[in-house]
Amino acid sequence: MSQSAQPAQPAQPAPALGRLYLVPTPLDFGCAQQAPITDVLPAASLRQAAQITYWVCENAKSCRAFLKRINEHHPLPLPLQEQHIAELPRHIHKKGDHAGSKAQAGKPVASPAQQLLAPLRQGHDIGLVSEAGMPAIADPGSSLVRAAHDMGAQVVPLVGPVSVLLALAASGLNGQNFAFVGYLPQEASARLQRLRSLENLAHKTGQTQICIETPYRNPALWQALLQGLQPSTRLAVASGLTLASADVQSRSVQAWRRFDWLPDKNTPCVFAWGV
Amino acid sequence: MSQSAQPAQPAQPAPALGRLYLVPTPLDFGCAQQAPITDVLPAASLRQAAQITYWVCENAKSCRAFLKRINEHHPLPLPLQEQHIAELPRHIHKKGDHAGSKAQAGKPVASPAQQLLAPLRQGHDIGLVSEAGMPAIADPGSSLVRAAHDMGAQVVPLVGPVSVLLALAASGLNGQNFAFVGYLPQEASARLQRLRSLENLAHKTGQTQICIETPYRNPALWQALLQGLQPSTRLAVASGLTLASADVQSRSVQAWRRFDWLPDKNTPCVFAWGV
Repeated sequence: MSQSAQPAQPAQPAPALGRLYLVPTPLDFGCAQQAPITDVLPAASLRQAAQITYWVCENAKSCRAFLKRINEHHPLPLPLQEQHIAELPRHIHKKGDHAGSKAQAGKPVASPAQQLLAPLRQGHDIGLVSEAGMPAIADPGSSLVRAAHDMGAQVVPLVGPVSVLLALAASGLNGQNFAFVGYLPQEASARLQRLRSLENLAHKTGQTQICIETPYRNPALWQALLQGLQPSTRLAVASGLTLASADVQSRSVQAWRRFDWLPDKNTPCVFAWGV
Repeated sequence: MSQSAQPAQPAQPAPALGRLYLVPTPLDFGCAQQAPITDVLPAASLRQAAQITYWVCENAKSCRAFLKRINEHHPLPLPLQEQHIAELPRHIHKKGDHAGSKAQAGKPVASPAQQLLAPLRQGHDIGLVSEAGMPAIADPGSSLVRAAHDMGAQVVPLVGPVSVLLALAASGLNGQNFAFVGYLPQEASARLQRLRSLENLAHKTGQTQICIETPYRNPALWQALLQGLQPSTRLAVASGLTLASADVQSRSVQAWRRFDWLPDKNTPCVFAWGV
């Protein structure tokens, strides 16, 4: 049959936009012992994640390891090697991807995020995952979420572990006014200045201050906290959250100074201080 | 046998201190439709909560309703009416129980918290719950957590839903530097002043600002946000998180002003804004 003999194809309605799911992952990334994934992700999160076949992640290898763990409880509709896995590009990936982005406000979203979200336009749901915990919290990903909103797509956060919040809840510090400030400066005098400015804020407003650090710098940060903060300031540190080795300690800086203790330089920790 | 004939009782070693578990509850409190509790709490949280028989809560009635839901999946060791349920007293209970407590720093903990924690000394674990979500986050309870640390007890946060963090992750706003500021002032000019000061902070530092409101005041807060914030500021609102009706919307204030939309005055919402 010649092409001209074909009936005119009726215009296909555009498929409904897919949804962007924020899929939390266990906090045991890279740990020797891992609990079943059902211990940290509730049934609705696992059920939903198991239906997704398009993924955006920080690292494709750990995304596949995560999908493998889901598959043990909810068989995936596509084998691992057929799942569509895309990595966040470096410039979206880096720390603080909106920090100081005042100049960008109101301008069109960067096109890499839109490209990563292309499957939404074909009606596919996308799952966004980070290396550990909730994506876009203390982790990259918010640019992608923003681009999804700008496309008019629905964004659905799923329940799972968030280390910063588990640490805050268990710290005994004010959880009704708190700030997560990301990473402190690495240079000693800049770090001390930032620490003291955050401590002043905590004393003036009651706002708890929370930060994280690359694990191998934990001991240096810890010593800066003990030396730089006032004796009466309360300081808490949490590590191994959701693991059997979970540890949260909270006391005044004065009391901490009597302990000969350093945080482990291989374990992610969350640090919090306030009144 | 006369009393004096009894052999001297050997001194009993003090039992090991119990642990304080922070037990998250579903976000569907008071909602007409409730999903199974297994949809929002992972297996390890449910398993642990089901073993606890001493509870501290905001409201005993809703604590019992929560235990009833757990019992459907994990039979409780004690019937509901034999569970030990204590309510946080009003002065611990109120908003911002550490806010501005600078004057108290270093002083002994208030004795009501110590009294509530007495079962720990007898070796019993205690579960702390709030009305919805994670206790001690945007909710009372941190004084109790602090008192537990001061007793030397272990504090263990369990994984579950945290509305503030689900909202932030889904907002497309910076999740690597953010502040939860609780409630804004109710009085219009004080509220506007606070809003603008938080907006300035967001523009200067990239820090996302998050607040909540008593639901019936949602529409008034919303109008203040739309009128008070700069057109280029990004504003997000989340409601019904974890429910089928979950809704997260995020756009510039300028774009919002073209919408004839108000948040529901019966639904808890989380509001966030930034660059």
